[in-house]
Amino acid sequence: MKTYKDLAPSLRTIMTPGPVEVDPRVLRAMSYPILGQFDPEFTALMNETMGMLRELFQTQNQWAFPVDGTSRSGLEAVLVSIIEPGDRVLVPVYGRFGNLFIEIAERCGAEVVMLEQPWGTVFDPEVIVEAIYREKPNVVAMVHGETSTGCLQPFDGIGAACRSVDALLVVDAVATIGGVPVLTDEWLLDAVIGGTQKCLSVPAGMSPITYNERVEAKVLQRKTIERGLREAGSAVSDRRPVASNYFDLGMLQDYWSPKRLNHHTEATSMLYALREGLRLVLEEGLEARFARHRRHEAALVAGLTAMGMALFGDPACKLPVVTCIRIPEGVDGESVRGMLLNHFGIEIASSFGPLKGQIWRIGTMGFSCRESNVLQVLGALEATLLRHGVQVKVGRAVQAALDVYGAEV
Amino acid sequence: MKTYKDLAPSLRTIMTPGPVEVDPRVLRAMSYPILGQFDPEFTALMNETMGMLRELFQTQNQWAFPVDGTSRSGLEAVLVSIIEPGDRVLVPVYGRFGNLFIEIAERCGAEVVMLEQPWGTVFDPEVIVEAIYREKPNVVAMVHGETSTGCLQPFDGIGAACRSVDALLVVDAVATIGGVPVLTDEWLLDAVIGGTQKCLSVPAGMSPITYNERVEAKVLQRKTIERGLREAGSAVSDRRPVASNYFDLGMLQDYWSPKRLNHHTEATSMLYALREGLRLVLEEGLEARFARHRRHEAALVAGLTAMGMALFGDPACKLPVVTCIRIPEGVDGESVRGMLLNHFGIEIASSFGPLKGQIWRIGTMGFSCRESNVLQVLGALEATLLRHGVQVKVGRAVQAALDVYGAEV
Repeated sequence: MKTYKDLAPSLRTIMTPGPVEVDPRVLRAMSYPILGQFDPEFTALMNETMGMLRELFQTQNQWAFPVDGTSRSGLEAVLVSIIEPGDRVLVPVYGRFGNLFIEIAERCGAEVVMLEQPWGTVFDPEVIVEAIYREKPNVVAMVHGETSTGCLQPFDGIGAACRSVDALLVVDAVATIGGVPVLTDEWLLDAVIGGTQKCLSVPAGMSPITYNERVEAKVLQRKTIERGLREAGSAVSDRRPVASNYFDLGMLQDYWSPKRLNHHTEATSMLYALREGLRLVLEEGLEARFARHRRHEAALVAGLTAMGMALFGDPACKLPVVTCIRIPEGVDGESVRGMLLNHFGIEIASSFGPLKGQIWRIGTMGFSCRESNVLQVLGALEATLLRHGVQVKVGRAVQAALDVYGAEV
Repeated sequence: MKTYKDLAPSLRTIMTPGPVEVDPRVLRAMSYPILGQFDPEFTALMNETMGMLRELFQTQNQWAFPVDGTSRSGLEAVLVSIIEPGDRVLVPVYGRFGNLFIEIAERCGAEVVMLEQPWGTVFDPEVIVEAIYREKPNVVAMVHGETSTGCLQPFDGIGAACRSVDALLVVDAVATIGGVPVLTDEWLLDAVIGGTQKCLSVPAGMSPITYNERVEAKVLQRKTIERGLREAGSAVSDRRPVASNYFDLGMLQDYWSPKRLNHHTEATSMLYALREGLRLVLEEGLEARFARHRRHEAALVAGLTAMGMALFGDPACKLPVVTCIRIPEGVDGESVRGMLLNHFGIEIASSFGPLKGQIWRIGTMGFSCRESNVLQVLGALEATLLRHGVQVKVGRAVQAALDVYGAEV
């Protein structure tokens, strides 16, 4: 019989755009013995988590809870619950995750209208507003921060345009939630999907979402009670039900409401982790947390620039939590990443599709977003590039970052 | 600002049919710092987990991996990946979770043929075999162990019948995997879905599945590469794609294969937990583990019977890991459960639909399935029933269980 060794993962400095390092308090939370899913102590923790998510999303929405799956499970739960086959869905695409929205919407049977911007740029919001008035879609699905390209999309006027044509505005804030302001109510976002493994620094496996009464109204039109749970005389909707049981928001909200109507078995330890991650966010304070992310980004960018590296993407729309670096001509990007991991224990990321082999991506997210990590990645990258024969400006990167930090001897 | 307290869940004796208590080694595994999803150390852990799952499912299948979601996510991943709209799906129902198969299959657009047995019984396998020859379905979806009723369905001849009409046989082994024999290959099961939070004693949040080359052939017919990941010239299938991106087994198997094609971000800490839970299962040995489950069931049943409680369900098909008790006439079942929880820290379960208020369910699963727990639940139940005015045979239950354990002074 094959034997399997004790778990003993190496300690890494994780500077990718997720998953990032997890705060020890969150790791500890996951090691607590579990409670049953309907234990009043556990449902109280669920309710507290909903309250904290409302603060995180800066919303008064009633509904704010995690979907039990990785980030894209939250995207799919929202889309499959509001899109009926034949609905028109407008998707502005400026990177990989806009494409994911199309991918999911098409599988929901939507007629997708795509807008495209070159990777590394974002849309002038006015262009999207015009498209909304022209196309009159049922749903507009947009990415707030594109981790694939390191760009941040502004929303000026888009929420109001959606209201005026009665479209629902769905926003992927997986990369931005907890690191960059996401003003759900102020921006008139109808549904927002966050991620745990990025700026919240909780392991992957849950996707916190929030949605308002406009989305809920749509959800309730197709609501059913699950077979095997129905009591005699339960109403059955004559609308075509949501194509997924697992992702049916009508059922999920019954489970997260005081009704506690059984659906899945809530992922206990992940809920403990999310709750602790949210406590850390609220203890730090949202504004202080956003400022911290900008500060370490500034240090990283100063260091990379001083080293002589070229950044990828339009600086005017740079996502503060992801910095993309053009891989120098003739350098094997994967060899550099391998050396960083194997010799320094530092992980940075590559990218996808058209950017594969073209850029590296460094995340400054959540618990990984701290001075020691930024200084270490700069020093290690300089040494690794030198080892690969790249003519970097030696000795400057870490000094430039220390300048940003105002480091005194 | 509202403040949220330190996490401090009470210690519970969890004797429900899941989620059950988690072995401290699994809890510890979740507290380890995470690795990146493409870190070679992490992908090695993924591969090891696949190897252990093959042993758990007693299969030579190439594909054995967890879906990142709770148990029903595994059911939905398998069904949505193999059912095309209009396909005929035969579902024998003898409890709540057969109904869940219908629920999911209908949402996949299937034409469902239902067979029904009263809750508390199972099917004579010959009845199902005849239905398979008569209905010639594309898919047969069956529950192995019904936690809602405490019954175990035998499979004699069903796998062979499915092969002869070219139907795929999908089995929900959420409640049985790791506690009761599940012989994937020997029984000719094409896809099997397990659960973590029952006999594996890992927190909810993952669903281990396995499937063979018959299922894979179906999956590959509709396979696509995700938008945003496609390289120039990638083939696009002209078949209607799987209705879900998150649950598309074609994409999941590319992620779990040496290709490591990016899909979701694997849930690191849950994977650590699953791996450790599987190590515990394999260290104990499957046969020894099944025998342990039978032994504690015998002690529990002896105790309940000695106390004078009536069990629910046909004893000939009793599921060893769930014991259902008829709530005595005039007793408020929820009051008994509340007193067990609030005074003894012990959780037992109620049931669903037609059995709501009719039975209690006690699980003997995984780490919760041990002598001290069985003795404690019997003693506490006796005291609680006395407190509710029920005429139990006093002092006998724990003695009867101790007899089964061969306890000597």
